[in-house]
Amino acid sequence: MPKLRNIRLILEYDGSFFSGFQRQPGRLTIQDALETALKKVLGKKTRIASASGRTDAGVHALYQVVNFKTDRPFPVERFPRALNAALPEPMVVWSADEVPPSFHARFEAKNKTYEYCIWNNRIRSPLQGSRMWHFPVKLNIAAMRRGAECLKGRHDFKSFCASQGSAKTSTRTIQRIELKKTSHAIRIRIQADGFLYHMVRNIVGTLVEVGRGKYPPQQVRKILLAKDRKMAGPTAPATGLCLLNVTY
Amino acid sequence: MPKLRNIRLILEYDGSFFSGFQRQPGRLTIQDALETALKKVLGKKTRIASASGRTDAGVHALYQVVNFKTDRPFPVERFPRALNAALPEPMVVWSADEVPPSFHARFEAKNKTYEYCIWNNRIRSPLQGSRMWHFPVKLNIAAMRRGAECLKGRHDFKSFCASQGSAKTSTRTIQRIELKKTSHAIRIRIQADGFLYHMVRNIVGTLVEVGRGKYPPQQVRKILLAKDRKMAGPTAPATGLCLLNVTY
Repeated sequence: MPKLRNIRLILEYDGSFFSGFQRQPGRLTIQDALETALKKVLGKKTRIASASGRTDAGVHALYQVVNFKTDRPFPVERFPRALNAALPEPMVVWSADEVPPSFHARFEAKNKTYEYCIWNNRIRSPLQGSRMWHFPVKLNIAAMRRGAECLKGRHDFKSFCASQGSAKTSTRTIQRIELKKTSHAIRIRIQADGFLYHMVRNIVGTLVEVGRGKYPPQQVRKILLAKDRKMAGPTAPATGLCLLNVTY
Repeated sequence: MPKLRNIRLILEYDGSFFSGFQRQPGRLTIQDALETALKKVLGKKTRIASASGRTDAGVHALYQVVNFKTDRPFPVERFPRALNAALPEPMVVWSADEVPPSFHARFEAKNKTYEYCIWNNRIRSPLQGSRMWHFPVKLNIAAMRRGAECLKGRHDFKSFCASQGSAKTSTRTIQRIELKKTSHAIRIRIQADGFLYHMVRNIVGTLVEVGRGKYPPQQVRKILLAKDRKMAGPTAPATGLCLLNVTY
């Protein structure tokens, strides 16, 4: 029996073209597009074994990590070019390498960084504000920063987890949470050892409530301690979210 | 008879959604989208009188200027919000003001600035390189800068004008031409008192030939002096081009 090799790929994609990550009948998903390309290149049905995180419909990735196993002797350095010729335009493979059989893109991830972008101007911007959440009411970024401070460190993030989440525990560690404003764009970067279902989008939805003055910044701490999803703000739309990095 | 007011609008649009500027049966163009919105807002068929330049299919605008005449007493400050509610997502009105009856967006323009963006990496980038020309072969930016220098000033740009162009004279003045590189993106900004049909895209196509070593930089000067379109490089694709500014 030929040896099964474990191959890791780094992907970039524009999430607006895909119905999320996971395979779904009758819809184009990241997994579908990638598995179709793998079949073309390897001449054999090949399944993605794992992804660092299964991004939701509309969520983008500048750096997504997946792995798959194959018995084909295809040279690993040729995967990017071969797959890119077979993939649809909104998705690309940046690199490929062979990893130990035990490597699992999700379980082995040490931490991940997401960036959420808000176009904060009364008037939307088709060019500069594409792939951002258009929020027309002026946000107080200093208040949002104070609110964000409460989330740093190891906490039970149950209040920011969608009820459909399947994680065993809702305790995670946020290592960095930073807000940056340039002209009308607000960028919120969050690095953590893991993320619950909709966690970034629920945190952003809550910080926006702070920014527009509906909650005082200290309310974020109260929401965190309540461990109750109903206490937090609404879920920010998928389009503003991008997976920026994963470390192992 | 009610007085005809002359209204100027500043527009932004993502050109990839439109079949160019000018009305065309069965296609969505900038003019169509805007005139449809004007009809909704003013309750009356209203034509665009002029645009600073009629961008081609696929060309973007961060700052496009148009004007139209109306006898309706609609308050000028309410046009942006009203039109934006009626316009498709990829297009937006940034501002509106009333101008003298003689104002003509095209004839009165003193100069215009275009930016052309190239994603210069072997691997395309769906997120960072969208609305850029993906050129996979490494370009020598220093050589391109030397080539661009030859184009500064007042010249007959016939070599860079598509044969379909209808301008009476092909003499124009390039006031600025600058190349900037950040990571894998090359941005070429050109400011001139006017542009011929496909002029920016033909200049970029020629500079790319210099950048990949097909022409020496001094060849640009020879091409300019030849006044022959066949001497210059190919027309760069529309998607990399964006109208950045117009001054009056």
